[in-house]
Amino acid sequence: MPRPSPTRQAPRRGRPGYDQETVLRCAIDLFNRRGYDGTSVGDLARELGLTKSAIYHHFPSKADLLKGALSEALDALAVVIDTAAASEDGEQGSAYDRLVSAVRQAVHVLVGHLPAVTLLLRVHGNSEVESDALRRRREIDAKLADLVRAAADEGSLRADIPPELTSRLLFGMVNSLVEWYRPDGRHDAAAIADAVTRLAFEGLAPRER
Amino acid sequence: MPRPSPTRQAPRRGRPGYDQETVLRCAIDLFNRRGYDGTSVGDLARELGLTKSAIYHHFPSKADLLKGALSEALDALAVVIDTAAASEDGEQGSAYDRLVSAVRQAVHVLVGHLPAVTLLLRVHGNSEVESDALRRRREIDAKLADLVRAAADEGSLRADIPPELTSRLLFGMVNSLVEWYRPDGRHDAAAIADAVTRLAFEGLAPRER
Repeated sequence: MPRPSPTRQAPRRGRPGYDQETVLRCAIDLFNRRGYDGTSVGDLARELGLTKSAIYHHFPSKADLLKGALSEALDALAVVIDTAAASEDGEQGSAYDRLVSAVRQAVHVLVGHLPAVTLLLRVHGNSEVESDALRRRREIDAKLADLVRAAADEGSLRADIPPELTSRLLFGMVNSLVEWYRPDGRHDAAAIADAVTRLAFEGLAPRER
Repeated sequence: MPRPSPTRQAPRRGRPGYDQETVLRCAIDLFNRRGYDGTSVGDLARELGLTKSAIYHHFPSKADLLKGALSEALDALAVVIDTAAASEDGEQGSAYDRLVSAVRQAVHVLVGHLPAVTLLLRVHGNSEVESDALRRRREIDAKLADLVRAAADEGSLRADIPPELTSRLLFGMVNSLVEWYRPDGRHDAAAIADAVTRLAFEGLAPRER
């Protein structure tokens, strides 16, 4: 039986796993709109029409809500880079192909988890939960940079851009989605992924230029 | 006689225009580190070793400091796009050449005014000063989008990326500088501008590919 999308429906009680998901969606939304410091568990309870103890039943503290939100984004991004980095034996193709695939999949993660990734990209390490998230984010960035270097080393990337700049610009462009992408139906994740990979790997100028 | 760089030296009193610049640099730095709401004129006075009234002598209110900071970024960006958009008569070259030049100049503005642009890109319109800045920013974005469309219309951009996505991705990549660029001397503005324009217009894959 398909479970209804938790973001689109009013909360229902007593359905295991459903309330928890609804609470997390709403918390991420409030954290993004008002800031983590500017949001209390009381605000969240009011927004959901739940009691504070109903929220604490799922998440023992506000920090656990933040941790859940950041983990959602980090876990999804970690899958992307671990998949792309996995094949040092070359079975999954060249570093270039794995980099293109990682960029494409990263776009899908950002579109699919836009509120959670937005929250992640605004974290500044003001608490243990945030510091842990920043550390995981740096690990992911380092693996992406390794993949860019591997593609450069195999000669698949132009040699006149330093790999560390390539890495920053490429994922800076992908991450910019949280600033401007709105799921209004004009462009879905696949269309954005096409645009990003064409622009980044082939360039905006027509090839015959 | 050359004026000393206001950001590198301790504040000196009584020199017209010098204190004001020092106060503004310090305010931008505090706003970026602690947030606008989290910074008081008293904090700024302590940081500078000045009295609050010395600060109010230059800036009548905290909102005027924010306005000064945001205007610095917006004025510099407006010059870039107005220069690029100016020549509808074609005297300054094709839309493509003007777009490449605008991207290059935008990188120079971001590197040269990094703290002020960082502040600008974090503004969310919570006050009249912020709303005015957001309005100016949207005007600049719209002119950049027009320039991208003009380049697409003259056939200088590949046809398989919608111009509105090109515009978002291109300037999303440029704006990402505020997240990762540190003026540590490894890459100056010209090197970043080269990397951005090569990646964006020619692509990361070697052309012979």
